[in-house]
Amino acid sequence: MPALVECVPNISEGRRAEVISKVAAAVTAVPGVRLLDQTSDADHNRSVFTFAGEPGPVVAAAHAVVEVSLREIDMRTHRGEHPRLGAVDVVPFVPIAGISMPECVKIARDFGWQVAEKHGVPVYFYAEAALRPERRKLGDIRNNVQYEGLADAMATTHVPDAGPTKFPERAGGIVVGARPFLIAFNIELDTEDLALAKRIAKEIRESSGGLPAVQALGFALTDPPRVQVSMNLLDFRVTPLTTVWAEVEKRAHAAGVKVLRGELIGLVPLDAALQVSAASLRLDGFDRTRVIEARFLE
Amino acid sequence: MPALVECVPNISEGRRAEVISKVAAAVTAVPGVRLLDQTSDADHNRSVFTFAGEPGPVVAAAHAVVEVSLREIDMRTHRGEHPRLGAVDVVPFVPIAGISMPECVKIARDFGWQVAEKHGVPVYFYAEAALRPERRKLGDIRNNVQYEGLADAMATTHVPDAGPTKFPERAGGIVVGARPFLIAFNIELDTEDLALAKRIAKEIRESSGGLPAVQALGFALTDPPRVQVSMNLLDFRVTPLTTVWAEVEKRAHAAGVKVLRGELIGLVPLDAALQVSAASLRLDGFDRTRVIEARFLE
Repeated sequence: MPALVECVPNISEGRRAEVISKVAAAVTAVPGVRLLDQTSDADHNRSVFTFAGEPGPVVAAAHAVVEVSLREIDMRTHRGEHPRLGAVDVVPFVPIAGISMPECVKIARDFGWQVAEKHGVPVYFYAEAALRPERRKLGDIRNNVQYEGLADAMATTHVPDAGPTKFPERAGGIVVGARPFLIAFNIELDTEDLALAKRIAKEIRESSGGLPAVQALGFALTDPPRVQVSMNLLDFRVTPLTTVWAEVEKRAHAAGVKVLRGELIGLVPLDAALQVSAASLRLDGFDRTRVIEARFLE
Repeated sequence: MPALVECVPNISEGRRAEVISKVAAAVTAVPGVRLLDQTSDADHNRSVFTFAGEPGPVVAAAHAVVEVSLREIDMRTHRGEHPRLGAVDVVPFVPIAGISMPECVKIARDFGWQVAEKHGVPVYFYAEAALRPERRKLGDIRNNVQYEGLADAMATTHVPDAGPTKFPERAGGIVVGARPFLIAFNIELDTEDLALAKRIAKEIRESSGGLPAVQALGFALTDPPRVQVSMNLLDFRVTPLTTVWAEVEKRAHAAGVKVLRGELIGLVPLDAALQVSAASLRLDGFDRTRVIEARFLE
């Protein structure tokens, strides 16, 4: 299995279709890179591109995203509801298979240093690639300062990890990092009891003492009226899908409520799916080497 | 996803390592074909090669297996415990992904006709590729006649589906067919009660009115002493792994016995593994299109 990395750049353009298309085309033009998803939001004025491939092609595609975005987006006139520091707001690299987190951190840092040098934009490293503890969380770097406050903050709280000391008004700043794959997973309960969904969510989420690397909220659904425990698994190797399923099911059953179905948002790594197969059938050592198709990825 | 076909030729040579190596090398020499498994048994004097790829390369590799085997194996001097009709005994083609059973039947028949013509050996089509109802089961074609009886039987019960009317003494006959992927799956129970394993096996196997396309037997294990329900899933799209797991677990629990673990023998198609993930998390429409790595098979 060759190393497979995902990259999920968020750019500050969600309205001009021709610009969004140019960015997507720059990604798909790189041989070996697959554009897995692309979503744009006009209110946020923001687009998210998800692509994957071996590290070399993925880094080349990430550079192409930066080049097209910095050429097409002028932050001096950008308006949108979503917090952002610059034209290319966030660039996370995510290990999918055959590559470690430290290797992805190196990819992220090399990429950030190259972008800073080539384009003269301030780069901040976050998540696993953070160089300072206070920059591990994206929100802590971005949300209180934003593009409008970055010029002033660059001399104080926001000295760049790489790049110029002078604020580039057109481009703004870029946050670059490496993080585990995030799985968005919802479980629907056969009840309208929102308090139950909220209680289960609270009990299983890490922030209130539950499962590590799990975020969870309870939501009401309409048509039909039901409730859902909506989760982010921040690292499925730490807390697998089957663990959150079992914990939610146990609590629902204790309340006399049936679990109706699960819902996975977007794509998942093969390892996350096989982890479920292995746990459900209690298989020892079941992994991608036991899957016929995986042999054709070698 | 390109069409992916598996081919599992069984040849009548399990002792001469140099011959077995030549056959394996003939398979791996075909670009696009992966040799997934290779097992030889000296007592049976038989080897099984499992390889997969797109139909063109797989058929080319199957022809190469026939050529090398007919050159190297002389059935006039062959001795072995396993029933067989000829030097290349059985050649099944198995749809793995992106190809239908009727397409695999056509591949098997074209292959059989070509082999009959090229090498002058009698070919019998079995399983889904059978041309006569009494030739659907491999055992019915082979076991009572075998190589030693085929010369006589060719004029009566064993008129070939393709090939000569004269028996080729050196090569013998070949059985060619198409069948679904077979999953060998065992479930270990936390008991020494062999009668329980045998009863569960009997209840779930198709032959005694249980689950369709399931064969099952109860076995005793040693070290530690336990019992196992040993199954063949003849078509996991008809009866999935999660169904046999649930049926065995239900019966074990009713007898107050814990299910310890499952064991998958060999490789499985991606669809069989994802079927387990989808059932376990009650996901609607979860399939290979939702797996990142599967995008790189396109």
